[in-house]
Amino acid sequence: MEKRIYNFSAGPAILPEDVLKEAQENLFALPGVGMSILEISHRSKTFDKIITEAKQDLKSLLNINDDYELLFLQGGASLQFIMVALNLMPPKNKADYIVTGSWSKKAVKEAKKVGTVNIAATLESENFKRIPKQEELNLDPEASYVHFTTNNTIYGTEWHKEPEVGNVPLVCDASSDILHKKIDVTKYAFLYAGAQKNMGPSGVTLVIIRKDLLERSSDSLPTMLNYKTHVDNNSLYNTPNTFGIYIIGLVAKWLTKLGGLDAMHKINKEKAGILYQCIDASAGFYKGHAEKESRSLMNVTFNLATEELEKKLIAEATEAGFSGLKGHRSVGGLRASIYNAFPKKGVEDLVSFMKDFQNKND
Amino acid sequence: MEKRIYNFSAGPAILPEDVLKEAQENLFALPGVGMSILEISHRSKTFDKIITEAKQDLKSLLNINDDYELLFLQGGASLQFIMVALNLMPPKNKADYIVTGSWSKKAVKEAKKVGTVNIAATLESENFKRIPKQEELNLDPEASYVHFTTNNTIYGTEWHKEPEVGNVPLVCDASSDILHKKIDVTKYAFLYAGAQKNMGPSGVTLVIIRKDLLERSSDSLPTMLNYKTHVDNNSLYNTPNTFGIYIIGLVAKWLTKLGGLDAMHKINKEKAGILYQCIDASAGFYKGHAEKESRSLMNVTFNLATEELEKKLIAEATEAGFSGLKGHRSVGGLRASIYNAFPKKGVEDLVSFMKDFQNKND
Repeated sequence: MEKRIYNFSAGPAILPEDVLKEAQENLFALPGVGMSILEISHRSKTFDKIITEAKQDLKSLLNINDDYELLFLQGGASLQFIMVALNLMPPKNKADYIVTGSWSKKAVKEAKKVGTVNIAATLESENFKRIPKQEELNLDPEASYVHFTTNNTIYGTEWHKEPEVGNVPLVCDASSDILHKKIDVTKYAFLYAGAQKNMGPSGVTLVIIRKDLLERSSDSLPTMLNYKTHVDNNSLYNTPNTFGIYIIGLVAKWLTKLGGLDAMHKINKEKAGILYQCIDASAGFYKGHAEKESRSLMNVTFNLATEELEKKLIAEATEAGFSGLKGHRSVGGLRASIYNAFPKKGVEDLVSFMKDFQNKND
Repeated sequence: MEKRIYNFSAGPAILPEDVLKEAQENLFALPGVGMSILEISHRSKTFDKIITEAKQDLKSLLNINDDYELLFLQGGASLQFIMVALNLMPPKNKADYIVTGSWSKKAVKEAKKVGTVNIAATLESENFKRIPKQEELNLDPEASYVHFTTNNTIYGTEWHKEPEVGNVPLVCDASSDILHKKIDVTKYAFLYAGAQKNMGPSGVTLVIIRKDLLERSSDSLPTMLNYKTHVDNNSLYNTPNTFGIYIIGLVAKWLTKLGGLDAMHKINKEKAGILYQCIDASAGFYKGHAEKESRSLMNVTFNLATEELEKKLIAEATEAGFSGLKGHRSVGGLRASIYNAFPKKGVEDLVSFMKDFQNKND
């Protein structure tokens, strides 16, 4: 079996080895079906079972009630930016956006093409190193919705508690931390997440929509951009990404077997804790980008004293089998993405490596 | 190795066994990379090589020159219906649509949301059993483009020669016969095709756009719906369906190894010929839906004398390992989809089975 390395990529990202093994074993032909998952009709009984189970398992993991519908769409979070605005901004055509990084900014850009955007908060002047406090939010009680981004991959920050928005529907892009812990879905009106960070391969977007929002969607919208189309057709109006949904289903089963999202959260806290502890104990050799209370459990961002030293660390780490540690150009430095599937052992090995590097270069 | 059956599904559809085997072998970790294709960054060197080669191989197979750009998008042909209209209808906001089946009708429905649609021809009154003749086309020389559907999966009809449209840009949905033969791409301004019938798994759409058309796309369009976005970013504005593109790349290499599209066309004519010959020689026991000169090489549609007899045939065929033969409800009867990857042996075996069935039931 081909040797695997530690993959710290921000997305597409690491998947559970058990999931990869099962997918590999059955890729030529699904047992008892005689066709590959890549070849079966999206309207077949076999696929109906796959999509139904994937939905049910995700609903169980996130404890989602029947007020919500769960969809598997295409086009990533980027297509959701415009779909959210087109469907949910009416009738008032104004919405609040909390800007915590590059992805929120992209969401704002699309929403402005549809209606009026109120920037409820932005900490761009602080290079998005923290999540705004509740009292910093300038919310409009008449807004059609409040949009926020739960986890900011580039900056390594994360909301540890949802913003309080009263009766205004809360909409969120959870692409980079969906399923990393249990959340109270009833606090949300709408959630969306590209699969490729914490859930599956690229090419599927999970959407969780509270059904009462559907009355906002106008029949004049393009059919494919109307959430009603996809709810009415159980995500099968057109051919979905069948393979992607299959893998998400396997990931959901892996999470369930692991003990669910509370068990996953415990592991994620341990993993991130080990890495942040190393940074904090380094006497400033490693400097975290995010402020402590805003730190992400998924993306750990940090800098060294000079860009030269950062390059040296990245080069040596890559050589040693730690891949994808280069930080995004907006922050520089390093970023270790340690999503659900990333093994604790890999974090421990990275920390040993980092300590060793500090000893040699401090 | 798991036993495989004959898959006559209309899409998602059969893939070459060599492609499935290679994908399976490398699914756990790409050789020398240490990560699965499902896990690697779309901005990595490994994926850059995959997408670049897939593009180059497709350009070589279809002999596409540098006036055109090739894109891998998401959302299927269904999302293209609205994207085509939004991007290509300006500045005159009117277009000609030739309606040859259900998919053309869906394209018309979306285009009407953007501008004026002239139905240049429709043979719905004949249940789409043939392709309109050139003299039946009511074309507007001022139209922004003429749209047609090359192959009609449901009805089993196919254009064997492009409609003549003068200087008006020709736009086509080639989802169900792309790559089944060599075409003269310079006759087209724009081609699109969902991958899941003749090219790969579901979740990727191939777009071939003549670059001069890009000036029609307004900057006010949603970013993800603007072809300029995707051309400017080499299909990597956001995370594409990386696995789907990888499989398309393997299919392109398989076609190249086979001898290219002329060799493929020869095989496709042989395969379809065997099946149509069986129908024509059945003395009316099997009745083709499509008129002879409009017959598709990809989807062979036919009926029997009664629905009861059709059900019996389908049941016995399924039992014997011929899957997916049930026709679409619009036409009833049977449909054998015999795309590029479908083996000649499978067609021969089906014909033996059909002859045997006729002997027993005529």
